[in-house]
Amino acid sequence: MNIGILIFPQVEELDFVGPWELFSLWQRLENGPERCLVVAETLDPVVAAKGLSLNPHASFSTCPPLDVLLVPGGQGTRKEVFNTALVDFIRDQAEGAGAVLSVCTGAFLLHAAGLLEGRRATTHWGSLDRLRALGDVEVVEERTTQDGPIWTSAGVSAGLDLALAFIAERAGEEAAAEVQLAAEYFPSDIVYGTPSRHPKAPAYLRRS
Amino acid sequence: MNIGILIFPQVEELDFVGPWELFSLWQRLENGPERCLVVAETLDPVVAAKGLSLNPHASFSTCPPLDVLLVPGGQGTRKEVFNTALVDFIRDQAEGAGAVLSVCTGAFLLHAAGLLEGRRATTHWGSLDRLRALGDVEVVEERTTQDGPIWTSAGVSAGLDLALAFIAERAGEEAAAEVQLAAEYFPSDIVYGTPSRHPKAPAYLRRS
Repeated sequence: MNIGILIFPQVEELDFVGPWELFSLWQRLENGPERCLVVAETLDPVVAAKGLSLNPHASFSTCPPLDVLLVPGGQGTRKEVFNTALVDFIRDQAEGAGAVLSVCTGAFLLHAAGLLEGRRATTHWGSLDRLRALGDVEVVEERTTQDGPIWTSAGVSAGLDLALAFIAERAGEEAAAEVQLAAEYFPSDIVYGTPSRHPKAPAYLRRS
Repeated sequence: MNIGILIFPQVEELDFVGPWELFSLWQRLENGPERCLVVAETLDPVVAAKGLSLNPHASFSTCPPLDVLLVPGGQGTRKEVFNTALVDFIRDQAEGAGAVLSVCTGAFLLHAAGLLEGRRATTHWGSLDRLRALGDVEVVEERTTQDGPIWTSAGVSAGLDLALAFIAERAGEEAAAEVQLAAEYFPSDIVYGTPSRHPKAPAYLRRS
């Protein structure tokens, strides 16, 4: 199994490094994926939304066929939905992949590639209205959601929960447990302020 | 306020990108830090523990005086504790900094720089015994802990909780709330398997 993580200028850092970390820990397990790689349009350095500079492992032309493609979000998605090379890459890889995942506003890139039509999906709380306005997506306000081969998550840090849920589904609870323990992903339950009272708070947060 | 995040070969990716994301979101707020930068020994690309390749913003010789230094962990710490240039950098910056933070096995680098003697500190659950064996650290099995200007956390993902706790202490609960909301850091409480029964489970996990 090859897992590819797409990056582009102004990609949000944690959106993709969260899943990168967990998928890479999965890779170390017996029966984990063979390869995890970071793919961009070219091999030039990519500067992310908060200024981190990264060197991709593969370009669109050198990337092998992927079994799993993860598309993160970030400010850059506003521009990349119009980048036909990137949208075509997602569409082409999705054809052969068993699963396509998005984190945060990466959902808009999946939509641009025609992958969300009539599907249940979610995104960062601040962009739920914008996803709804596209008209052909069944927007749910969950932390993570799956609809067939398409998995989407809420914003930024939610990619961690998405990746673990995906590992649990693909490789079983024991593999997910090993990855969660290795990453010591037992987050504090401290909530600062009262985000559930925010007028745009997503349903999963209002319920909690 | 300048925040520097140290990286080195085989640094664990999420250890530093978690805090990087949250500190960078803090930076966007009024009265947030002026600069967040990634520092390494030289400006050459740094390959992290799981293969991510990064281009630092500053080298040890070009790095400005830091108000806050965050030291992540990872397999590379086993070697870097013997790297006098890196240990000296930590020690020198710590003298002028108001706070030094470590994530995961970054605690061993703080120790090499003489910053943990007689102090309360923690690390990844798998390395607690090794930290205890150093003999001069008061090891606590908490997710995050503060002892004066020294803040340390448990493994990998715990850097997210550490960074938020630090922002709350420095800038108040309202700033921490804005950052937490922007990063949508309201993690799922799903626990795979029974990690609290692991023979090396840290106290905070056994309690939960």
